[in-house]
Amino acid sequence: MRSSLHDFLAPDSIAVIGASADPTKRGYKAMTGLLNDGYEGIIYPVNPKADEILGVKAFASVTSLPAAADLALICTPAKTIPGLLAQCGENGIKGAIILASGFGEVDAAGAALEAEVLAAAKAAKVRIVGPNTSGVFNLHKQVNLLALDNIRPGDIGIISQSGNMLLALALEAESNGHIGFSTYVGPGNQTDVDFSDYLQYLGEDVNTRVATFYVEGFKDGRAFLNTAREIAREKPVVVYKSGSTIEGQKAASSHTGALAGSYAMTVDLLKQVGVNVVEKSDEILPVAEGLGLLQQAAGKRVAVLADGGGQATIASDRISEAGLQLAELSEVTRNKLREILFPQASLLNPIDVAGSTDANPGLLSDCMEILAADDNVDMVFLVGMFGGYGIRFAEELQAEESATADAMVALSKRCGKPLVVYSLYAYIQPEPLEKLRNSGLPVYGSIEHAVEIMKALGERGDYISRSQRIEAQQRLTTDAAMTDMFASARSKGRDLLEVEAKQLLRNYGIDVPKELLIRNSENFSAVVAEFGDMPLAMKVVSKDILHKSDAGGVKLNLSGAEELGYAREQILKSCATYDTSADIEGMLVTPMARKGTEIIIGVSRDPMFGPVLMFGLGGIFVEILEDVAFRAIPLSRDEATSMVDQIKARKILEGARGEAPVDKAALIDLLLKVSSIVDAHPEIDELDLNPVIAYDDDYAVVDARVIINRNAAADSASGET
Amino acid sequence: MRSSLHDFLAPDSIAVIGASADPTKRGYKAMTGLLNDGYEGIIYPVNPKADEILGVKAFASVTSLPAAADLALICTPAKTIPGLLAQCGENGIKGAIILASGFGEVDAAGAALEAEVLAAAKAAKVRIVGPNTSGVFNLHKQVNLLALDNIRPGDIGIISQSGNMLLALALEAESNGHIGFSTYVGPGNQTDVDFSDYLQYLGEDVNTRVATFYVEGFKDGRAFLNTAREIAREKPVVVYKSGSTIEGQKAASSHTGALAGSYAMTVDLLKQVGVNVVEKSDEILPVAEGLGLLQQAAGKRVAVLADGGGQATIASDRISEAGLQLAELSEVTRNKLREILFPQASLLNPIDVAGSTDANPGLLSDCMEILAADDNVDMVFLVGMFGGYGIRFAEELQAEESATADAMVALSKRCGKPLVVYSLYAYIQPEPLEKLRNSGLPVYGSIEHAVEIMKALGERGDYISRSQRIEAQQRLTTDAAMTDMFASARSKGRDLLEVEAKQLLRNYGIDVPKELLIRNSENFSAVVAEFGDMPLAMKVVSKDILHKSDAGGVKLNLSGAEELGYAREQILKSCATYDTSADIEGMLVTPMARKGTEIIIGVSRDPMFGPVLMFGLGGIFVEILEDVAFRAIPLSRDEATSMVDQIKARKILEGARGEAPVDKAALIDLLLKVSSIVDAHPEIDELDLNPVIAYDDDYAVVDARVIINRNAAADSASGET
Repeated sequence: MRSSLHDFLAPDSIAVIGASADPTKRGYKAMTGLLNDGYEGIIYPVNPKADEILGVKAFASVTSLPAAADLALICTPAKTIPGLLAQCGENGIKGAIILASGFGEVDAAGAALEAEVLAAAKAAKVRIVGPNTSGVFNLHKQVNLLALDNIRPGDIGIISQSGNMLLALALEAESNGHIGFSTYVGPGNQTDVDFSDYLQYLGEDVNTRVATFYVEGFKDGRAFLNTAREIAREKPVVVYKSGSTIEGQKAASSHTGALAGSYAMTVDLLKQVGVNVVEKSDEILPVAEGLGLLQQAAGKRVAVLADGGGQATIASDRISEAGLQLAELSEVTRNKLREILFPQASLLNPIDVAGSTDANPGLLSDCMEILAADDNVDMVFLVGMFGGYGIRFAEELQAEESATADAMVALSKRCGKPLVVYSLYAYIQPEPLEKLRNSGLPVYGSIEHAVEIMKALGERGDYISRSQRIEAQQRLTTDAAMTDMFASARSKGRDLLEVEAKQLLRNYGIDVPKELLIRNSENFSAVVAEFGDMPLAMKVVSKDILHKSDAGGVKLNLSGAEELGYAREQILKSCATYDTSADIEGMLVTPMARKGTEIIIGVSRDPMFGPVLMFGLGGIFVEILEDVAFRAIPLSRDEATSMVDQIKARKILEGARGEAPVDKAALIDLLLKVSSIVDAHPEIDELDLNPVIAYDDDYAVVDARVIINRNAAADSASGET
Repeated sequence: MRSSLHDFLAPDSIAVIGASADPTKRGYKAMTGLLNDGYEGIIYPVNPKADEILGVKAFASVTSLPAAADLALICTPAKTIPGLLAQCGENGIKGAIILASGFGEVDAAGAALEAEVLAAAKAAKVRIVGPNTSGVFNLHKQVNLLALDNIRPGDIGIISQSGNMLLALALEAESNGHIGFSTYVGPGNQTDVDFSDYLQYLGEDVNTRVATFYVEGFKDGRAFLNTAREIAREKPVVVYKSGSTIEGQKAASSHTGALAGSYAMTVDLLKQVGVNVVEKSDEILPVAEGLGLLQQAAGKRVAVLADGGGQATIASDRISEAGLQLAELSEVTRNKLREILFPQASLLNPIDVAGSTDANPGLLSDCMEILAADDNVDMVFLVGMFGGYGIRFAEELQAEESATADAMVALSKRCGKPLVVYSLYAYIQPEPLEKLRNSGLPVYGSIEHAVEIMKALGERGDYISRSQRIEAQQRLTTDAAMTDMFASARSKGRDLLEVEAKQLLRNYGIDVPKELLIRNSENFSAVVAEFGDMPLAMKVVSKDILHKSDAGGVKLNLSGAEELGYAREQILKSCATYDTSADIEGMLVTPMARKGTEIIIGVSRDPMFGPVLMFGLGGIFVEILEDVAFRAIPLSRDEATSMVDQIKARKILEGARGEAPVDKAALIDLLLKVSSIVDAHPEIDELDLNPVIAYDDDYAVVDARVIINRNAAADSASGET
């Protein structure tokens, strides 16, 4: 699928509507940006009051241009836009960048004008960037509509909901000296073109190696997920999502008016589809640079090669905290290292050369070669003074360091594993480090940043291998009886009863303990016959009673017909007090669940991201610690597995405190079945299995609740579009 | 107390033992460092084979020097050291720096030699730095024994267990251009002078404004705590402690042979005594710089002033994540801001000027003035483009920015609150930012780092105000009966029985539920008379049975004499099976504890830090989540309070999930009493109250265990030395 954005984000001709010779105007800045950067296409200044602008022939209107332009940059105020878009359409312009603000981000009148703008654009068949955009550049076409100075063309594409954020990254790149950009767009109000469209474009753009996003709020998060899932197979997608806290969400909302959504959920969903999520703003550029230049890692096992114990220790701490591992080196590797290093060198990972390289820095690339050849090693991390031996020890070492840098570059191209370099001398940029950088090996001046890059390379490698494991998508055939059950509940204006929710689960192969629905008091002997002497639980069934325990609608540990009958009377009495008009269908009787680990599985339809599955342990884990995992539905088996592995409470599932581990395979199967059911039944608005009790050999769904979508028309709109 | 280290770390004369004209020798590097930096004191090269070294008259031995030197730098091998120290003593030298390695860090023979070195030093009355030190500098005395180039004198003192770490910080400072150092010492094996001695010295050193430590392992952690508690009242103490993970601890131990200890505990104890703990290596220098230059903060409330929404959002996220707060601005403040900013400016914190300053950057210092005057504001954080208005908007703005920088500097000196500046242009160092830096206002290029600095300023302010609240130290008078009880248990070769442990607690005013010790089966009617119809618990009392439940030694929910008698027989039977030779003292009978929140309080004597108190919630909080707080004993009320506030599970104590909050004051009182008891009774080796049940109006100590120190001689060594 070729993005229509290519037609105007790499334009051969540009109409600058509102072009100006007044340096305080945006229409001046755009003109000078194009002229100074040597734009090779045709510039059409449009200004009814001028014959020429900055030496370029001007036109009175878009309709009077001698030919169709690819792109219009519209610098005029908000109210002029609908009319101008119609003119752009007449001219055959494919896309317009609208700088003006004063739309939906301001007030209701602005929102109405914004709707008018969108309608005009659709009618004119003109795609629009913005309105309220900070601007656009495409440095490989010399299209620098922001007139930013000192910005290098390169391969990082950026879409940023903050113009200042772009500026910050541009200044950071300028100081780094090796990082350049391809295309930038400020998406503004995303009235037409949105984040997912930009991602598709950057994904296809040959000049972009990494698609990088600063996001305050998605408009259509589900579309972004769907696009990212595809693009991330081919190139890295980096997202910094602001609003990790309530305070940040409030600030973002006053900035762009965007709804932030749940941060933890957003991060989980983005990672699910292969996006590298960066959590600190000062790591955006280093991580994007690293992902663009370095090979992804096949796993998480890092070999650390250090010429000083302090940095080796710090690196080990950060690696472990980041969820990476110190590789366990093979005996062969250690023997080879032993041959070339001093006897006092430490050959357990982290490797400390202990002075071996002081007079002989060339040994560093030899060691890296040995480490990269070890099958237990996914990444090699060089930590220490490399690049500064000539400064620190003896000037004549610089030539050897330079040759060593060549050897590292060659190894990096050959070995198929990322080599990550941290140097104390990164700030000073001595020649050997300059050589590494010029040859596409980044050099980091912070161990912390370098480890974040390795984490990102590992996550990217994991996604790529996940995306290659082709899996028969588990799609259910919708059962007509179930569709009827939803329709019937809907016609009665109610959600599914617990007994119906469980019927739904059973119907699609989820293992729900046997229950009997007792409608009158005479049936208890049948119940006793069915369940024998197992202790039983009794719960009220009523569409009017949502919180059964609060209503006194639950009795536990019952045995024998007499106790059951007495319990039923008590429940009826309590419920009548709780809600005098409650309509009671009957009582659900089931054996008491054995003790096990309480699990919660929930599904909701997020306004931005569509159906989302949540998984966590019950009680304090969900309520106090918010230790839960989210995934967009539908779900692959790998993704379901990663949910279980992600939560901190996994230690409990794995059998901490001397207990047997729970049956993880059964839980994963349950998650997949829930995903399939929600995917097959758009009638479901929310679904909660709370609790599910997990055992070492099975699970039991103790309670199930399904809230249905009361609007039948919505049923056609499934989550996966 | 004046540190004896002044006598030789700021020396007026230096003997360089093993001085050399051979550039590959350490004795050459030290000579050139002193000569190149223009050391003004007297240099005595000592080398029996030379008449002069690098133009300086040499001497055959230390004993042949014409006068006493203050300091000896010993560059000769390990085995020569004891003899040389004796000679140093004869000469009257006060301190020696020993570079040689090959001591305790290597093997047992090395350890023996190290003991010999220490004995020789004591006999000669010479203090020693090292051995195995990376060296020393004192830049204010032009004593640069490491011969580091491009290193500025300044006010950051550094003690680093890694020479490369010092080098990394020096290079970072070189690139920053504004950070300088006072004294550096590599403590090496700390055979004589240790971390606490260096801290005392840096605390007293007039040239040092911040005492900074890179620590892999403390030798005498308790001494460091005691010194830090005093020094941190006067100047900031910054510690980066490596070994935050098992992997890092292993690496550190292979590097310096140091025992890392529990990282979480070490961090808690350091913070208790006012140390600013830095958790990322790339934050050491920025935090030290900020603490040295900026006023500490009286609280945690930050006003954010931004000229762009993106950075305002990021700042809000980081501030909230760091445990700081966005200040709630007063109405007066908002009105004043409203008067000078555009109507579209956002006046809720974070303040977004929304273009007001684009043509008028001087408004930024006006806004800061208004914010700093608000009593609800503890710190002002400027976020955005300041310093770059002249570059971004119009060159003529640079003069106004420069005047604005002057205004900020003046405000900073006047207002008594820290002003923290993050600028997109920090990397470029334009003139207005250069001016801020030159006037002692640091400028950060990372929001993340800037927020870490604010967090540190808040923690430092908190410590200073804590340390000013003078508190009558709750010291117990030791009860002779209790001392006898310990002596008696010790004479029987056992720990305290549960009943004795509880007696100890009761004796010092801890509220322990009434219990009866029943030695034979006839007493149950007395028990029933005592407790009435409350359900009772029975536990076996035996020095031989540590894990009572495992032995079948606990029965719950008993009522009536008959049930009690039956339970006793069952317990006796089970315990006899569990341990046929177990000596049973009797049964402890007590009413069942009401349901409440399970707390664990534990005390142990850490080999590095002495007696340490641990506090946490029972069950998964301690076992799975390791959500506990540590403090060194003895403890102030503020410190006890901060333990309860620190743990993540505090939400449960505060009454999450609809339950009543527990009686926090009672818990704090309990922590203080436990601290006092352990302080008064050096016989206690470990003490565990597990569980304590916390209620909304009280607590109940359900089980208590005291392990005693079997060695009576240790009793005199209390924790607080």
